[in-house]
Amino acid sequence: MARPERIAVLGGGSWGTTFAKVLADAGNDVALWVRRPEVAAEINDTRFNSGYLPGIELPERLRATGDAAEAVHAAEIVVLAVPSQSLRENLAGWQPLLPDEATLVSLSKGVELSTLKRMSQVIAEVADAPMEHVAVVSGPNLAKEIAAGQPTATVVACPDEERAVALQRACSTSYFRPYTNTDMVGIEIAGACKNVIALACGMAVGLGFGHNTMSSLITRGLAETTRLGVALGADPMSFAGLAGLGDLVATCMSPLSRNRTFGERLGRGETLAQAQEAAHGQVSEGVKSCSSIRELAARSGVEMPITDVVHRVCHEDLQPGPAAAELLGRERKSE
Amino acid sequence: MARPERIAVLGGGSWGTTFAKVLADAGNDVALWVRRPEVAAEINDTRFNSGYLPGIELPERLRATGDAAEAVHAAEIVVLAVPSQSLRENLAGWQPLLPDEATLVSLSKGVELSTLKRMSQVIAEVADAPMEHVAVVSGPNLAKEIAAGQPTATVVACPDEERAVALQRACSTSYFRPYTNTDMVGIEIAGACKNVIALACGMAVGLGFGHNTMSSLITRGLAETTRLGVALGADPMSFAGLAGLGDLVATCMSPLSRNRTFGERLGRGETLAQAQEAAHGQVSEGVKSCSSIRELAARSGVEMPITDVVHRVCHEDLQPGPAAAELLGRERKSE
Repeated sequence: MARPERIAVLGGGSWGTTFAKVLADAGNDVALWVRRPEVAAEINDTRFNSGYLPGIELPERLRATGDAAEAVHAAEIVVLAVPSQSLRENLAGWQPLLPDEATLVSLSKGVELSTLKRMSQVIAEVADAPMEHVAVVSGPNLAKEIAAGQPTATVVACPDEERAVALQRACSTSYFRPYTNTDMVGIEIAGACKNVIALACGMAVGLGFGHNTMSSLITRGLAETTRLGVALGADPMSFAGLAGLGDLVATCMSPLSRNRTFGERLGRGETLAQAQEAAHGQVSEGVKSCSSIRELAARSGVEMPITDVVHRVCHEDLQPGPAAAELLGRERKSE
Repeated sequence: MARPERIAVLGGGSWGTTFAKVLADAGNDVALWVRRPEVAAEINDTRFNSGYLPGIELPERLRATGDAAEAVHAAEIVVLAVPSQSLRENLAGWQPLLPDEATLVSLSKGVELSTLKRMSQVIAEVADAPMEHVAVVSGPNLAKEIAAGQPTATVVACPDEERAVALQRACSTSYFRPYTNTDMVGIEIAGACKNVIALACGMAVGLGFGHNTMSSLITRGLAETTRLGVALGADPMSFAGLAGLGDLVATCMSPLSRNRTFGERLGRGETLAQAQEAAHGQVSEGVKSCSSIRELAARSGVEMPITDVVHRVCHEDLQPGPAAAELLGRERKSE
């Protein structure tokens, strides 16, 4: 790359911290904002974020701060790495601090419950920025594997191709290979829906089903995701790519992914409250997005049977066993 | 279903035996031809095929025989369940026995090395039957899970839709749900190529790569498979379905699948001969098909980089480590 950029990453969870590491490894000056001052101190003093990325040493070019204004000051790229349903509230607080020309990058995967907006739409609205300044990074990107230096590929999407290329350059390392794309709708819908399908796969695992069932869920899940995306104007090819199929398979395969783990607990008969308690009080992204995606599908006249049963298991007392029977019993004569 | 059909299954490996069980569970009279008389005797006397499906009790309606003429006599459906590279030779011996009107069903997944023909083409040629009599069954169908009664879906393809529907009816059970399709090229190319991609995934696992890498291989593997299929006249949608994406994901996910296991051994540094010895003297389907598919791609002007490196690892002394580096190093700027 030509010169180091100033980049802020807002949110020090496992993916935010990992992406900050990627950006620092690529040669940029990275400020990572974390909510808790003791985490910032741990990162700056020891080079570890032991709560979210145990065992991973963070590069010197990454410094942590509890002060968002300091992190964002003069940044050319601002990466937003907070849960999708709290992005609006967080961003509203940061809005006055944002440099006018910064590229605003979403790492969040979800559809806002109250508005049914995609994350890029929330960002453009709350930051009062043109959509051409907003970008998304999404792909088969299990944080722990990337943090460990395992090679992976990803998609960097932005309506402005020049900004997409600049962001691609800023996050290219020997182990992290970004490809550009301009289909924001496709990349974001794929990312939001995969969390819901991963919940369904987890439930299947929890119920004792094997790889054949999981693969059928992935196949039909990608099909219903593609239907929704196309109805919303996406390019169907995005769903066959790294941020569609690739991300979906990685999340559903990994026994460590949060949505799959959460679904497994539900499939084994735990209640939402019990699964939430086991996940340190948090529900996984898919638990919320299943409802907003289902609503988006209804408004678009798109059938999403897997998303529908996931919503009903999470929020309407449908049990996973009967949910599976309902999906398996659907009539469908030709493929 | 209306009435039991007489069905012959020729080949008593794990998938042949499992599919014979499905057909018997669906209410048909099934004769399973096996090469070794002692295996036929074990199945008929004990209801078990302990060598290939340990612990699975076979239904009464399934009887085994070492006599192909007896198995095939008056059969309405003849299922061919032998390895792809020996299908021609086996079928040539059975050809005089085949009833004229029987539907000939291929369970083999491969492309013939000497002729670059798909299995249905080999069958039509050797059996001297119209293509409308030839069908294929393919999907996310790990034999052991189906034998255990785990629910799964599959695709039944035949150029003659009526025969496809008859075969669908003949193999429908509570746990096995077939969907019809008429795209023979797509279903067969998907089935043959997935063995090669599973070999590549196995190599990645053997080299120590994680789920991100596997998912990227699956995504790009399906993309190159689709390119080949479309060049040969297939419907691109077949590759997004159960026999494309579904079968590919199931095979690559399962630590028990033969091609993945074979690839893992190569990835860990074993030679082809060592991996073959560990697999009871057999090479996996993908080891042979990678060469015929590569040749088919070259003749069609289609780039298949994963298939190409798998061929070179298996047959041209390329080491898996440099093969991975070559794939990861490919230049590709937009998705």
